Amino acid sequence: MSEARGILYVVGIGPGAQDHTTPAALAAISDADLVVGYTTYIKLVRHLIDGKEVIKTGMTEEIGRARAAVERARDGGKVALISSGNAGVYGMAGLVFEVLKSLGWKRGDSPELRIVPGMTALNSCGSVVGAPLVHDFCAISLSDLLTPWSVIARRIEATAAADFVIGLYNPASGRRTRQIVEAQAIIRRHRGGETPVALVKSAYRKRQNAAVTDLDHFLEYEIGMLTTVLVGSSQTFVFEGYMVTPRGYANKYTQDGEVLAGQRPGFSLVPGVEEVG
Amino acid sequence: MSEARGILYVVGIGPGAQDHTTPAALAAISDADLVVGYTTYIKLVRHLIDGKEVIKTGMTEEIGRARAAVERARDGGKVALISSGNAGVYGMAGLVFEVLKSLGWKRGDSPELRIVPGMTALNSCGSVVGAPLVHDFCAISLSDLLTPWSVIARRIEATAAADFVIGLYNPASGRRTRQIVEAQAIIRRHRGGETPVALVKSAYRKRQNAAVTDLDHFLEYEIGMLTTVLVGSSQTFVFEGYMVTPRGYANKYTQDGEVLAGQRPGFSLVPGVEEVG
Repeated sequence: MSEARGILYVVGIGPGAQDHTTPAALAAISDADLVVGYTTYIKLVRHLIDGKEVIKTGMTEEIGRARAAVERARDGGKVALISSGNAGVYGMAGLVFEVLKSLGWKRGDSPELRIVPGMTALNSCGSVVGAPLVHDFCAISLSDLLTPWSVIARRIEATAAADFVIGLYNPASGRRTRQIVEAQAIIRRHRGGETPVALVKSAYRKRQNAAVTDLDHFLEYEIGMLTTVLVGSSQTFVFEGYMVTPRGYANKYTQDGEVLAGQRPGFSLVPGVEEVG
Repeated sequence: MSEARGILYVVGIGPGAQDHTTPAALAAISDADLVVGYTTYIKLVRHLIDGKEVIKTGMTEEIGRARAAVERARDGGKVALISSGNAGVYGMAGLVFEVLKSLGWKRGDSPELRIVPGMTALNSCGSVVGAPLVHDFCAISLSDLLTPWSVIARRIEATAAADFVIGLYNPASGRRTRQIVEAQAIIRRHRGGETPVALVKSAYRKRQNAAVTDLDHFLEYEIGMLTTVLVGSSQTFVFEGYMVTPRGYANKYTQDGEVLAGQRPGFSLVPGVEEVG
C-alpha cells in the first residue's frame, strides 16, 4: 500500500441532465483521476471526463467495480465512483462500505471517503408528472435478484394497506416481467382501479417519456428497467394531466386560508371534521 | 388578468448549501422577478436575490404564500416559489396545484408551470451518515397538524412490521413532542433495541449535526423541527460510525464477486441459502 492517502468520492449525478447535477458532484468528478461507473452513467458525464482514466463495466459487475474503485483509492488515487440518482439509494454506496469492511478499513485510513448526494429517481420523476410525493411515500425495488420475492411482496402489501404513495424501482426487465403484474394485483386489493399511477422513463434525459394513468390500466403501457412507477394514495388526484397528492391543508383551512370550525393552527388536527386516509 | 403569460417556477433548493443546489434551480431563481418562500429558505439563497422583490412569510402561512405566488405569475410575472429539499416532498408543490385548481386554471393558461426538482432531506441526510437507504425505505411525517395521528401511527406500524428503513420527517417541535415517543414505541415492538438510528440536523448547512445511535437510545438526543430521523431495517449495520443498509449482494455473491452455490446471476434469488428480511 502506498503512503499517500487517496480519496474515494461516491457520487450521485442525479437524473443525468447536467443542469440537475449538483456543483458538488461535478467538482468531485473533476477532481478525480479515475472515474468508475456503469457504462450508461459514464455516458451521461462524458463531457466531464476528457483525459481521465475510466473504468466502465456492465450492470452485473457491481462488486468488481466497487472493489476496483476502493483499491485504487486506498493506494493513493483520487477516484470517483458514480451512480445515477443518489449513490445511497439502491446505488453503489452500500457496496463500498461492504468492501471497506472486508478490507478491515478504519476511519483515518486511506482512502478518505467523500459521499456526494444526488437527486434520486423518486425526486426527479415526481417533478416530471406534478406533485405525487407531497405526503408519506415509500420506495420498493421489484428486483428479486438479491432479495427474496416474499420480502418484497410483504412490503408492497403493508404499504398498500397503510395508504402510502408507492414508488416502484426496477419494475421490470427483459427477463423479469412477472413482478410488476403481481405488485399491481396486491395493490389493487387495497385501492380502487381509478387510483392515479404515473410511469416515468429517463426523467430529464433526452428520451424522457411520462404518462399519468390509473391502477387498472398502467400495465397496458411499456414498463422497463428505466421506468419508475408511482402509485397514488387514496388522496392522490389527477388535475390537468398532473398527478397530485395533497398535504392535507383542506382538512383544516378554507382555500382562502381561513381556519375551519373546530380546528386550531399549530395544534393537532381534530379528526372527524373532514376525513383523511 | 394581464394578457402576458407569466411563469411560476416551483423550486426545490436541496439541503441549502449552494454546491448542493442544482444549476436548474439557480437558473430559475435568477430568472424570477419575485421570489416567495419561508424566511429560513430565503436566507439560504440571499446571495442570489439581490435586486429582486421578495415575499417572506412564516411557516404557518403556506396557503397565503402559494396564492400570492400563483396570482402574481398568473398576471404575467416571473415568480419563483422556493422550498428547501424538493418542493414536491412535503413541500409547496401540492398546494400550488390546489390553488390552481381553485382558480379554474387549465394547461396553456397563464401561468406556465415549471417544477424544478431538488434533493430531499432523506437523500442529503442519508449521505451525511453513510448509506442507510440502499434498500427499501419510506418517508413518514410525524406532524399531525394536517393529518390525523391514527393515520400516521398506522403507517409507522405497517412499515416497521414489513422491515423498511424508516425516515421520519418533522419528528418534533417545541409544542409537539409526544409523537416521536409513540413512534419509537411502535417501531420497538417490531425491531431490536440495537437497531441503528441516525439523527441528522441541518445537513450540509453550517450548523450540521449528526449522530448514529440506536433504537433504545435515540430519544436521549435533542430532536427538533430540523432533525430527520432514520431508523434502520433488520439488515442495517453500523461500521466505523457509518450507518449502512446492504443491497443484498452477500445473499448471492462472495466478497470477490463469485456466485454462491445454488444461485444464478441475472435470475431470481433462490431463498434459503442465506436469509434476508
